[in-house]
Order: sequence, then structure tokens, then C-alpha cells
Amino acid sequence: MDKIILTGDRPTGRLHVGHYVGSLRRRVELQNSGEFDKIFIMIADAQALTDNFDNPEKIRQNIIEVALDYLSCGLDPAKSTLFIQSQVSELTELTFFYSNLVTVSRLQRNPTVKSEIKMRNFEASIPVGFFNYPISQAADITAFKATTVPVGEDQLPMIEQTREIVRKFNSIYDEVLVEPEVLLPDNEACLRLPGIDGKQKMSKSLGNCIYLADTEKDVKTKIMSMYTDPTHIQVSDPGHIEGNTVFTYLDAFSTKAHFEEYLPEYSCLDELKDHYKRGGLGDVKIKKFLNNVIQEELAPIRAKRAEYEKDIPTVYDILKKGSDAAREVAAQTLSEVKRAMKINYFEDEELIRAQAEKYSDIR
Amino acid sequence: MDKIILTGDRPTGRLHVGHYVGSLRRRVELQNSGEFDKIFIMIADAQALTDNFDNPEKIRQNIIEVALDYLSCGLDPAKSTLFIQSQVSELTELTFFYSNLVTVSRLQRNPTVKSEIKMRNFEASIPVGFFNYPISQAADITAFKATTVPVGEDQLPMIEQTREIVRKFNSIYDEVLVEPEVLLPDNEACLRLPGIDGKQKMSKSLGNCIYLADTEKDVKTKIMSMYTDPTHIQVSDPGHIEGNTVFTYLDAFSTKAHFEEYLPEYSCLDELKDHYKRGGLGDVKIKKFLNNVIQEELAPIRAKRAEYEKDIPTVYDILKKGSDAAREVAAQTLSEVKRAMKINYFEDEELIRAQAEKYSDIR
Repeated sequence: MDKIILTGDRPTGRLHVGHYVGSLRRRVELQNSGEFDKIFIMIADAQALTDNFDNPEKIRQNIIEVALDYLSCGLDPAKSTLFIQSQVSELTELTFFYSNLVTVSRLQRNPTVKSEIKMRNFEASIPVGFFNYPISQAADITAFKATTVPVGEDQLPMIEQTREIVRKFNSIYDEVLVEPEVLLPDNEACLRLPGIDGKQKMSKSLGNCIYLADTEKDVKTKIMSMYTDPTHIQVSDPGHIEGNTVFTYLDAFSTKAHFEEYLPEYSCLDELKDHYKRGGLGDVKIKKFLNNVIQEELAPIRAKRAEYEKDIPTVYDILKKGSDAAREVAAQTLSEVKRAMKINYFEDEELIRAQAEKYSDIR
Repeated sequence: MDKIILTGDRPTGRLHVGHYVGSLRRRVELQNSGEFDKIFIMIADAQALTDNFDNPEKIRQNIIEVALDYLSCGLDPAKSTLFIQSQVSELTELTFFYSNLVTVSRLQRNPTVKSEIKMRNFEASIPVGFFNYPISQAADITAFKATTVPVGEDQLPMIEQTREIVRKFNSIYDEVLVEPEVLLPDNEACLRLPGIDGKQKMSKSLGNCIYLADTEKDVKTKIMSMYTDPTHIQVSDPGHIEGNTVFTYLDAFSTKAHFEEYLPEYSCLDELKDHYKRGGLGDVKIKKFLNNVIQEELAPIRAKRAEYEKDIPTVYDILKKGSDAAREVAAQTLSEVKRAMKINYFEDEELIRAQAEKYSDIR
């Protein structure tokens, strides 16, 4: 069986370093590992519209931003199929049929849906489209017969929902769908990078993100203003690592090579942490180091983005070709689904023959 | 603006005389009135699957039965587009987008959904597809820009849901969708014909239906066994009209011409009722009259059905041509919907030009 990845992002804004260490960087590694037969990367505009239906302009403007971020990070249209969810109509048809296989109360019990609803302050006014999104996600995953879905732990209940739908479909109709496996992040620190203000979540509205597309100067300014340890007032004071954003970022980004290059007086991050905890290590020094590390990571991405920005029509063309290719695969799965459900009446010569016979027998 | 009808039936069994007087007969009249520019008649298999998902064979076998019933009653493919819901994929895509415009609590408050859920003993295990069906119905109606939906009073909340979706869509995006009007039955007696056992609802499982496809002999046997008035024991006893199935059927079927032909000693139904109430009129006499009336109505339908039954592939061909035609109309609406929502990115030259310009300005 082919090894196939399906993953993607909602185009509600530019991607930031949280996306990068949390998923993008690994996605590029997986792409280049040669271990996967097909990789589908979806810009989930239709899903983003479920809770942004009154602001389609926001989604529409951010598709190109996400695509630029993808390409600059090294996602390669020759190796990965980059596509826009809404351009693959087959996904909505699969969603429609799968929604017969899930009960309303099952959706209400989904912990991911519960917490997302809470996060958005929806309470009683949850749009049905948003409520249904675990089913829509099952359609996205199964349309491409994905075997592997790289997600964070918070998304596990979503994937479990997909697996349930697959098992139910296959047992009622026919063995058509593939049960996906979850691929969890390999680095705990990358799971959810906090904002530069130390808040749990990076968000555009909080203004606490470092974007992949930020200029060198902006990145430096943001890093130098990062939240560290409010009790660490004098350089000589002992400092805390826990909840210290600079160290969380260093956990996610720094390597031994970075120390050799920019901070040779320490052999590794643990040594740096020990010094900070003992006292005698200033915030400016660790921030400067982090800046060097992040700038090194972002510089090639920024350069690549600038190239793609010069040719926006080509980026749309990449997305169009990817969407066409994705549609072809999804259409094949949909046709198998309809055959299994026996709703392919006009192709079903056996059905027409048997019914004609039945009526000729009656006469 | 064109006057357009959308209506249809769930293919869960053969159609019976309840369907006939409740909707089919009128549908044929409307078709032949010349007052409507387009008429779309949908065999709602996808909707039927929402609560029969584990028995697609039932739905699949009954599509031809409903189609045969339609054609035998006088629905004419030259005047009406007969199509199968699941063969028009665009309907699921519209359902998907509309579901962003309806909240979960709004669906839960829908009285039709409430009573249908109760009727099916779903309680907590309502399939999401079934729960969503007012949204799917809005897609069916608006896809064809139907102005007129002939339904019974019990369906009014469903059409109100469609009207709400239309208003919300048009106000958020653009004036694309048409708000449909309800066309209520003109004959109260036809609203819901009881079963021959006097039970409120005709149902296959209760075995109390007279089907359009029943033989002459079967129809007679069923009518002669009909529930009348259990207190009307002797012919001379005064009888009750209320709840007397024979009279309910006569209300729905009999005309003055029937009296002239089969029961000239009475000028009209009111005279017959008066005699029954006074006493002195036996059940056998009124049943024989009803049998004459119904046989006259069903004979041409039965004859036409026999013709179509000889050529099942032609019936499938009618449905295929109708589904192709319906798909063309729905695809046009969907394309307008996507343009209004601005998710037609690849056709949107203005978007691509503006974004290319934005990036050239930045540089």
C-alpha cells in the first residue's frame, strides 16, 4: 500500500514560526525523506469559512500568503501536491455521505470540537458547518486515501473520528476507505510555541507572532522584546527556564552547530540553561543568541519568498495544477464510494437488467 | 422572473393513493397548466439515505418504482425534468456552504425536524445527515432557483429555513439566490389521506396502503375491507362521517360526474353523507361506489405503468437525461454562488492582478 500524507493549514493569516516548528519544517523533511509515495498539502479555505463565513475576503487574501509561506519553506510542487480545498468539490460530496454515519451526540462529545467551540465563544450559535468539521476532515483525509496524518496531540480525537467513519463505511458498504495513522511531532518543544509575550498562543490579534515573512529588522525587534522571567531583574539574579519564552524558542530552534557558531563559550543548550538558572547570565545575551539562530533559519525562507513574490501568477498556477491533480484523485475515491454505496445507478447495468427482468417475469 | 417548481419524493417505496391526492395529481395539473416555466421533480435518494444509510439496497430498488409511478400519473419528461438527487453533486456542495449560515440551535428548534426525529425514535442517535436535512433541502430548492414549492402545512418550517438561508446568503455575499414561495394544497381532504384501517398514516409496514401499482382486484379487496364507523352495525343505524375512512377517501376523490355515472340516486357527496348520518345507508354500498371512483382514477395510471414496465432501460434513460439537465442548471447556480462568495480564485483575474501589484509595490 502506498504511503500517503494529507495535511494542511487554514488560510486565516500568514504562517508564523509556530507553524514552522510545529508542522511546516517537519513536513518539508517528510517530503524530502523519500519515504512517502504521495503528499497532499491542503489550503483549507472551506474549513476556514465555517467560522469566517461573513469575511470571505480575509480567507481569499490569505491563500496566497499561505502558499508563499509553503513554497519559501521548501514545499516543492514537484514532490507535494499543493491544493485549495474548495476547488475539490468531491470533498463536499464525501462529507455529505459520511454525515449519515455519525450521530449528532457523537460530534457533541468530540473533545477537539468542544474546546474549539469554547475558544471561539460560539456557545449556542455554533454554525452547523463548524460543528460538522470533523466529518469534513474525514472527507479530506479519506479522499486521498491518506495513511499518515501529521498532527499535534490536540487533534487526536479528530483523527479518531475519521477512523470511526472509515470503519463504519467499510463495514456497511465495502472496503474502500483507508484508516489513517497519526504521526505525532518528534520534538515536544515544537508542539505549541508560545507568543513572544509568553502567552500560550500566537495570534494575529494579540500581535505576538514572528511571521515567516517578517523582515530581519522586525524579527530582531520582536526577539529583543520577548518575555523572559520577570523575577530575573539583575544579571546576577538566578533565572527561571520554565515559562521563559526565549528558552522555549531555543528548545525548538537551536542546535549544537548554532552554539559553535554564535556562542562557542557554551557547548549546548543545557549548559546555557544551567548558567541562567545559577544567575550571572543576562537576557540580552540569550536574546541575541536566539536572534542569530532564528535569523539563520529564516534568511533562506525570506529570500525564497522574495523570489516567489515577484511572480504571483505562477504561484496561482501551482495551486491550480495541484488542485486539478487533487481533484482527479478525489474523484476516483468518490467514484469507488458511490459504487460501494450502490448509488452509481446509470453505470449499474446489472441493476437495470435485473429490474427489467423482474417486470418481464410479472407479466 | 421565471416561475419554477421544485418538488419530489423519497424513494423508500412505491407511491400510494395518499401521495397521489396529496401531491402527485396536483403536480401533473401544475405541469399541464402552462403557468410554470420549468418544473424539477427530484427523486430524493440522498435524503432517503440519511435515515436508511445501512440499507442502500432499499433506496436503490425503489428509484425505478417512484419513476414508474411518476410517469404513469402523467408527469411528462418533455415538460418536467425528472432527476435523481444523488446524481447532481452540486447539491452537496451548496449544502456544505449553506451549513455555515445556520446554527446548530436553529436546526434543533425546527418543528419539522423535531417531529421527524420523534417519529423515527432517533432520540440521541440522530445521524448528522438527517439532522442537517433542512439545509440540504435549501440546497435542492435554491439550486434550481425555484420560486414555488408545493408542500403540505407540516413542511412550512422547512421552507422557512430555506428562506432564511436565502436572505442570509444574499445579504452577506450577493443577490444570487431566490426566496421560494410555498404552494399549499387546495383541497383540505387531500392533505393526509389515512390508511385503509383508519390509521392516521399510510405505511408499508402497517400494510394499510392502496398503491398506484396495485391490481384492480387488490384495490377492490382493500376498499371492501376499509375501516368505516364501528357504531354503524345495522344498515338502519345512524352513521358517522368523521373518521370514516370511506368518506375521507370520497372527499379526496369523488366528483359530481362520478355520482352521475355510478350513483345517480344522489346528486352529490353531501346528499350521500346526509343519508348515511340519518341511517338506512349500508357500508357495502358506499364502498362499492368508492371502488368505482378509485378504479376509474387508477385504471389509466395502471395501463400507462404497464407500458413503461416493458421498457425499464428507457425509464433509466429518462432519469439520466433529466439528471444531466438538472446538473447543468445546478452547476450554473453553484458557479454564481462561488463567485458571490469570492472563492472562484482561478477565474478571478482581478484578485491575482491586485496581489501581484501589492508585492511589486512592497519591493
